[in-house]
Amino acid sequence: MIEATFTAPIEDRIPLVEERMRAQADGHHPTMGAALHHLLTSGGKRIRVIVTLLTGKMLGAEPERLITLAAAIESLHTATLVHDDLIDGALIRRGIPTLNAQWSPAATVLTGDFIFAKAAKLAADTESIEVMKLFSETLATIVNGEITQLFSSKWVANRENYYRRIYAKTASLFETSTTSAALLSNVGNDVVRIVKSFGYEIGMAFQIIDDILDFTSEQTTMGKPVASDLRQGLITLPALYYLETHPDDAEMKDILESNFCDENCINLLLSSIRKSGAIDQAHEEARQSVRRGLKELTKLPASPERKALEDLAVYIVDREI
Amino acid sequence: MIEATFTAPIEDRIPLVEERMRAQADGHHPTMGAALHHLLTSGGKRIRVIVTLLTGKMLGAEPERLITLAAAIESLHTATLVHDDLIDGALIRRGIPTLNAQWSPAATVLTGDFIFAKAAKLAADTESIEVMKLFSETLATIVNGEITQLFSSKWVANRENYYRRIYAKTASLFETSTTSAALLSNVGNDVVRIVKSFGYEIGMAFQIIDDILDFTSEQTTMGKPVASDLRQGLITLPALYYLETHPDDAEMKDILESNFCDENCINLLLSSIRKSGAIDQAHEEARQSVRRGLKELTKLPASPERKALEDLAVYIVDREI
Repeated sequence: MIEATFTAPIEDRIPLVEERMRAQADGHHPTMGAALHHLLTSGGKRIRVIVTLLTGKMLGAEPERLITLAAAIESLHTATLVHDDLIDGALIRRGIPTLNAQWSPAATVLTGDFIFAKAAKLAADTESIEVMKLFSETLATIVNGEITQLFSSKWVANRENYYRRIYAKTASLFETSTTSAALLSNVGNDVVRIVKSFGYEIGMAFQIIDDILDFTSEQTTMGKPVASDLRQGLITLPALYYLETHPDDAEMKDILESNFCDENCINLLLSSIRKSGAIDQAHEEARQSVRRGLKELTKLPASPERKALEDLAVYIVDREI
Repeated sequence: MIEATFTAPIEDRIPLVEERMRAQADGHHPTMGAALHHLLTSGGKRIRVIVTLLTGKMLGAEPERLITLAAAIESLHTATLVHDDLIDGALIRRGIPTLNAQWSPAATVLTGDFIFAKAAKLAADTESIEVMKLFSETLATIVNGEITQLFSSKWVANRENYYRRIYAKTASLFETSTTSAALLSNVGNDVVRIVKSFGYEIGMAFQIIDDILDFTSEQTTMGKPVASDLRQGLITLPALYYLETHPDDAEMKDILESNFCDENCINLLLSSIRKSGAIDQAHEEARQSVRRGLKELTKLPASPERKALEDLAVYIVDREI
């Protein structure tokens, strides 16, 4: 959970969302309670919960249904992380051991499935067919994005593919958070479209910044080695901008042609990218995304929640870089 | 698909259900289309589809929504099988290689997730909140059953645990098939309860018979070695009945105390169980279950669909034993 002013309007509701999530393990095998507790205390920022609660409160959604929706969104996110960690073989996330590091693959698959089931149940508990449909479509989008990445042995490194990938991975769920909060509120389609755009833009910015942090931060901050994307042959926005201005860079060619770059190659490439203007270019792009999102919000009446969403958008693009 | 008279009333709808399932891959990575095709042609009996379609047609459900529901049910079943095969490390199902045998664990996890997402979308497409809730609860029940089994290193071999396990594994989805078909129809709670009981009873019988077949059939019929449950230390109904009358059987003690029984131990135990009346006792129990289900159905007006459901129930309990 983020300690910041933008949580103020919904601060009292965040613990209720966590409580709702924990309650999903009731009546099931005790291991599920332990797993959910572990996942809930693993230091997630609950940013999707905050976005959902602020949007819904701004638009007058009924609090109980909104809390249920936020729990559904965060559960879906948690379930995809559990399976992701298994797929990546990740043993650490946010500096804390993953379930995958402690459990058998079988237990990890089933825990993810269980949380999916509970996310679907929570979404159904919002009593909105539209929310349910959006919810299941978003899960399909996220998983399809991962499958595409998994089966694309020769990843075509261009920005179009990058945008498609980060939409599937991150922006789709931000967009669904704001959109479904609006669907639970008594508002017109124009308002739904406004918050949908806002969710999309801050989601894209969020992932671009995450990808920048992989280049700029040190191991301890992210709980994973610097340039971990490059090490996996994954070309994100800073590297793409660098590639556009340095199409003949030797290390870049290595990584693109063989999906492999040894420690020396990584260090050379990292240093070249850092020295170039590529990271600033990527950052500017995230800022533009947030600016477009903020412009959408100005179409809605001023309110403490709108102000908080604006602050949150600015926080997303300026955090720890 | 089963070639039998009980499919007659809904024969024309089964291909529509399969078409609906295949269409879920549209617009997604081509691999998903290939995977769905593989799963749909792997020789499943579509028994849940038939139960759903017959129940819904009997009660007057709107055909389009009913087809969508049947596709949702079969997709949920398929998704759980994909993850099950991964968890069991199964390389063969129904004599055909599993996805798990051909793909990486990562691809198998994601394919299962994708089919879950599409099952949830199809369930939402029925436009019934009640169906959605039941659907997600059933998924939680199924997964919780598997988790319980996975984490119960010392399985307490008694019938109560057995019934709980086969309810989670099999009967819950049969019950959900009939119940949700009724929820889509314009019928009262009494009718919902009748078909719910019927679904429960035939589901329990179906799994008991499956467990009997593991003792009576030869490798080729089931696509897995005879007594595969015992080999995994899994004590099903025939073994439980045997245990009740032979509490001091040496091989049974081995398997219960160490969860392990070598080839010689398995053969001795298999022969003892086959010679005892335990398999007949288990079969009689499945028959009683079906009889209770049939008795429920007599509370509904006679119709070709009711007749077909009755034939199906009898088929379930008398197939290939």
